[in-house]
Amino acid sequence: MEYDYLLSLCVILLSTKFFGIISRRAQMPQVVGSLMAGLFFGPAVLGVITKEFFGQQICLMPSPLIKHLAELGVIVIMFTAGMETNLNELKSSGKSGFTVASCGVILPLCMGTGLMYLFDSEINLPSALFVGAVLTATSVSITVETLKEICKLQTQAGNIILAAALIDDILGLICLTLVTGMASGEINLFFVLVKIIAFFIFVGIAGLTYHVYMLWFDKVNGEKNLRRYPVIGFAFCMFIAWAAERLFGVADIIGAFAAGMIISMSPKGDYIAGKFDTISYLLLTPVFFANIGLEVTLQSMSWWLIFFTAVLVFVSVISKLAGCGLGARMCGISRHESFQIGLGMVCRGEVALIVANKGLAMHMIDEKYIGPIIIMVIICTIVTPIFLKNAFKDRETV
Amino acid sequence: MEYDYLLSLCVILLSTKFFGIISRRAQMPQVVGSLMAGLFFGPAVLGVITKEFFGQQICLMPSPLIKHLAELGVIVIMFTAGMETNLNELKSSGKSGFTVASCGVILPLCMGTGLMYLFDSEINLPSALFVGAVLTATSVSITVETLKEICKLQTQAGNIILAAALIDDILGLICLTLVTGMASGEINLFFVLVKIIAFFIFVGIAGLTYHVYMLWFDKVNGEKNLRRYPVIGFAFCMFIAWAAERLFGVADIIGAFAAGMIISMSPKGDYIAGKFDTISYLLLTPVFFANIGLEVTLQSMSWWLIFFTAVLVFVSVISKLAGCGLGARMCGISRHESFQIGLGMVCRGEVALIVANKGLAMHMIDEKYIGPIIIMVIICTIVTPIFLKNAFKDRETV
Repeated sequence: MEYDYLLSLCVILLSTKFFGIISRRAQMPQVVGSLMAGLFFGPAVLGVITKEFFGQQICLMPSPLIKHLAELGVIVIMFTAGMETNLNELKSSGKSGFTVASCGVILPLCMGTGLMYLFDSEINLPSALFVGAVLTATSVSITVETLKEICKLQTQAGNIILAAALIDDILGLICLTLVTGMASGEINLFFVLVKIIAFFIFVGIAGLTYHVYMLWFDKVNGEKNLRRYPVIGFAFCMFIAWAAERLFGVADIIGAFAAGMIISMSPKGDYIAGKFDTISYLLLTPVFFANIGLEVTLQSMSWWLIFFTAVLVFVSVISKLAGCGLGARMCGISRHESFQIGLGMVCRGEVALIVANKGLAMHMIDEKYIGPIIIMVIICTIVTPIFLKNAFKDRETV
Repeated sequence: MEYDYLLSLCVILLSTKFFGIISRRAQMPQVVGSLMAGLFFGPAVLGVITKEFFGQQICLMPSPLIKHLAELGVIVIMFTAGMETNLNELKSSGKSGFTVASCGVILPLCMGTGLMYLFDSEINLPSALFVGAVLTATSVSITVETLKEICKLQTQAGNIILAAALIDDILGLICLTLVTGMASGEINLFFVLVKIIAFFIFVGIAGLTYHVYMLWFDKVNGEKNLRRYPVIGFAFCMFIAWAAERLFGVADIIGAFAAGMIISMSPKGDYIAGKFDTISYLLLTPVFFANIGLEVTLQSMSWWLIFFTAVLVFVSVISKLAGCGLGARMCGISRHESFQIGLGMVCRGEVALIVANKGLAMHMIDEKYIGPIIIMVIICTIVTPIFLKNAFKDRETV
């Protein structure tokens, strides 16, 4: 029997919390801290240091149990994200948000794919598109937290950023679905599209069934047996996630996200979300992000790869800024506000990492690119709040 | 990539809840339902039925991810059990509880070990003792719930049963530690005892450190950043569990139990316990008990094994009833009340299954005995509430 997973979990819990607190003090989201914890205690940093000084590599290593928890963790993270996505909010700033998000998805996707062709002559289209898809998704949570902090969430720019970031997430996931479909050997794009549409019809029917059942159940059950709600909700999430992959070839995380959105609109949605909050921060989220950090081995970090990282960061910032800014201008928004919106959409987060992780697991993204992608996410996340604060400050003094 | 674990988790969550509700309606604890769910949807029942009718074995199978979750599950269950054990309560009915518990541990241990020698001529002492150890632990939760239901928890007999059941758990775990130590090739019982004592000293020091740190932390931190408490507590639990196995050769579950007891006496103990309640019922407990049911394959259930099961059930009931009854009589308790106490201690539950599972994982208990042990646990659990209600009713009419 293997017991070292206990010590690994202990180190992961404490270190992600500790690094998370530090990154929050530095005005960065806790996700950055969790990633740093994995990088620091994993083979990338501590592994190299201990090998250098003691001739032995003493560090956290990705183990099967940690990987399994991370696998379940991403399902729960996307499920929670779905529960937090409010469809009604989307409808209000819908039109301009949609234009901004669309432009902010297309440009990074194209530029990311082009970049891969430029750097890797042997790459095939699905693999290149996968890296492009990584660049598409803005992190909702990070954007919102920054805007809240500087009290600009209620401005026009703030509202559009919020709507665009939410739509962006969904578009990014549709991108992922398309790319995943292509990667699994379905060269027939039409067939992939038919399966995606079939999936959305399936989700609609399943969602309606769940909703009607819960309305009835809530009426019969009342305020007792509250534990049954999260259990049924979780089982529903698992079922949709499984059906997405097995029956429609759509990524499981999209199924989990859809299940979350359905549950948030059904009775006791907030109660269920509250319960998953605990399971998420207490175990699954730290393990998921730390595990991504653990997968990075910087030994393979050549000068060529460092150069690639720099270009990747540049492309990811510029493509979002230009794409979203252009989208905003198309909606007749002033140049300054368009710039603010573009900046607000730069930061990446969970979804980018989840897509990258998915690509790695499907052997679509080479292991050596995970390091640069993580660094890109960290840098985008660090610069966004700083730039955003400045951009909003400028306006006040004008 | 493997996605079927999603469907498995969906079925496990729904079926354990459904069977749990049925067993509660039938006045039985939900644990019985969870076990039944695993038995029913696993290879033991559904697997046999589908093979019979369709020529294919369609059922839940134990997968690595489920096993890993179950492994983590038992740590969390024992951690929660530790948090619910109130040391102060034990002190009040301490003396008689201790006598009852001791007799109720020694007799089942001896009779269980003897039984194994009788039925299996090739068995060695540690393996026989392991089955004996399975018979030692009364289920606190089941006993308490039954007594609460018939409003007899506050009687003298009720108090002694409660104290004895708690002490019994701890004695049972000490038994397990001794047996585990012997099984791992440490023939030197003296050395095993020294390591156990060293472990308790270690736990004492670690507990004191934790307690002092938390008193300081709670003073500094106040009512904000509440998430840090369960995270630190969980990390502490993981560390003690790991140290128990790695440094002292004591079972990891005992470490988790000890960590739980320490945390319950420290600041925000109740808050931490509440958080683990969620993580436990929403994921880990159902998976753990269903997984035990999944491990059973009744195909190997020969007539000989059915006979063995019957004798095992008989021995487990009689040894507890006689042992605890005798212990109660030794404390000068009336014959009728001694009988009630003995009956109240008959039911087995989580700890018996956990010990059996541990034995299976250590290759100390043969796979074929798991079925009989589960059946024994289920029968003991079903008969206890029925007998107990009658025994208390008799008294009232007298």
